[in-house]
Amino acid sequence: MVGLKDVAERAGVSAKTVSNVVNGYRHVTPATRRRVQQAIDELGYRPNLTARHLRAGRTGIIALALPELGNPYFAELAEEVIAYAAGRDYTVLLDHTHGRRDQEVLFIRGVRAGLIDGLILSPIELENEDLAARGSDAPLVLLGEREYEAPYDHIAIDNVAAARAATRHLLELGRRRIAFLGARHGRTRQPAHLRLRGWREEVSAAGAAAGEDLVATTDGYTRADGARAMARLLDSGAAPDAVFCYNDLVAIGAMRTLGERGLRVPEDVAVVGFDDIEDGRYCAATLTTIAPHKQAIAREAVDALLARLRPGPAATPESSVSPVSPEPPRHIRPGFALIPRESTLGRP
Amino acid sequence: MVGLKDVAERAGVSAKTVSNVVNGYRHVTPATRRRVQQAIDELGYRPNLTARHLRAGRTGIIALALPELGNPYFAELAEEVIAYAAGRDYTVLLDHTHGRRDQEVLFIRGVRAGLIDGLILSPIELENEDLAARGSDAPLVLLGEREYEAPYDHIAIDNVAAARAATRHLLELGRRRIAFLGARHGRTRQPAHLRLRGWREEVSAAGAAAGEDLVATTDGYTRADGARAMARLLDSGAAPDAVFCYNDLVAIGAMRTLGERGLRVPEDVAVVGFDDIEDGRYCAATLTTIAPHKQAIAREAVDALLARLRPGPAATPESSVSPVSPEPPRHIRPGFALIPRESTLGRP
Repeated sequence: MVGLKDVAERAGVSAKTVSNVVNGYRHVTPATRRRVQQAIDELGYRPNLTARHLRAGRTGIIALALPELGNPYFAELAEEVIAYAAGRDYTVLLDHTHGRRDQEVLFIRGVRAGLIDGLILSPIELENEDLAARGSDAPLVLLGEREYEAPYDHIAIDNVAAARAATRHLLELGRRRIAFLGARHGRTRQPAHLRLRGWREEVSAAGAAAGEDLVATTDGYTRADGARAMARLLDSGAAPDAVFCYNDLVAIGAMRTLGERGLRVPEDVAVVGFDDIEDGRYCAATLTTIAPHKQAIAREAVDALLARLRPGPAATPESSVSPVSPEPPRHIRPGFALIPRESTLGRP
Repeated sequence: MVGLKDVAERAGVSAKTVSNVVNGYRHVTPATRRRVQQAIDELGYRPNLTARHLRAGRTGIIALALPELGNPYFAELAEEVIAYAAGRDYTVLLDHTHGRRDQEVLFIRGVRAGLIDGLILSPIELENEDLAARGSDAPLVLLGEREYEAPYDHIAIDNVAAARAATRHLLELGRRRIAFLGARHGRTRQPAHLRLRGWREEVSAAGAAAGEDLVATTDGYTRADGARAMARLLDSGAAPDAVFCYNDLVAIGAMRTLGERGLRVPEDVAVVGFDDIEDGRYCAATLTTIAPHKQAIAREAVDALLARLRPGPAATPESSVSPVSPEPPRHIRPGFALIPRESTLGRP
């Protein structure tokens, strides 16, 4: 194996200089950088981080699949995963599934298995049977609200508790007709299952309105879905004095509709979202929301995945991914916080 | 090389069924899928798309580096690149640079060169000398407003023309004190260079105010930057009746500040952004903006990159990336459109 010292000798520089070039530090002159790169190319040297992975039978690449990069929550989460993985010498191959079951199945089956050490997936439509029929034994970590009976680590905040906290905040402000925006068709398996349950438990416990007339379904979780659902809810005569939305995008869409109808936020209708995306902090009425601890989610997901990778040096490239470790799957619950802003408290 | 038929024979199914499993189609029973996957694992079969790349000495992976995934413009562009590349049998490894020069340099030098066929970068701070001292010969395509004297294909809309169109729209509405929000410190090399030039050319040609008191600098291009710059501009007494913002995020931040100061959009101050991110369509006043043709940008970038990859079968894995083709670099200009909305036209 060609080492740093071989490159240094060939280029006529110190090992430290080679290291500086490899790590992309700025204070190397272009001429020196060219000389070192030439030596690297001639000798076929692989920088340490890659070499270390290769020695262990790994590629140093993990794949992360999210429903939509256009949803800032997932984009922000992806940034956290990429940053944390980089600190562990891993590169992240990022994919998106559009929340479609066929794309999610394709991802967990790992078509590019030989190039990827492990997978992190935030599923929307994936079913238990898909996980059971998975085939691939590359380590897999699941993120988010969907719950599965499958032997995989799962990272998710306590969605029921978070939804109860959001609903309680509205109840404490005196709201009694709190709608839920963003349920899905079909009851038990919908992704919004836990947040809807949290809303229902909290309004019921408080003796507030909990009727189905206050539950608005959506096709997805975009701003457009929120705008349409809010319009339907208002047209139905349900007359809510508050809405708890599945996520911030739905809430932002709902606030747009409220504005078009001449209803004031929060005076006429208070609004709470979920995700704490940056957009919410710059709305005409800044958005009260549940902030999942994204950094912790990213850290736990990467750590859980790396813990399942083959630790020591491996024999052949063919065995570059280890079978699922016999350790029992873990359910990890990062924290969350309620962030009250103008959409419930009004402008100070 | 193990083929589809070998897998089919081993699993006791048709080649079509194997193909269905490999492509992740749903209408395969879990039992059949398991059997096929077992045969795939036992025989070490690689699906066609990977095998085709490997035969050509390629990995089938291209890398895309963007300044920020948290900026919806880049997230939306990444989705387009991923989708278009997938249609060409390429997987995209997505990275972000925070718009930092050292990260951009690290990316173009291609630490993971052996795993990546080619690179697409949207640079912010990268300099000509960095490209000259690059070392790596993996094909590279550049995106965005920064212009370089370097032999690489460059995909960017005509930023000067787009900025002139945005400014003209405001002039046609009778605005005479149009500010530019989002210039950077230092004149010629700043990323916002071309948009600022377009603004200056258009206001000057119309005989409208073009003074430096109407140009607000920002540290970056986030909502927070826009909010702060708008506050400074108002505090300075520049009294603009319109602002043209470097991008939609800056515009959204500016609109928040205008709202806090009790100024109406567009009655008191009209606002135009740039990027056409979805957020802008759900603001309290929907945002007038320049819409770059993102799909065309993604398509041109991937096509330009793939055109520079070694076309035929290659000899050894070491030569998996081809040297930059001798064809001259191309400057490709996808289209754009001005989208007028409430932030300049008012509510209908």
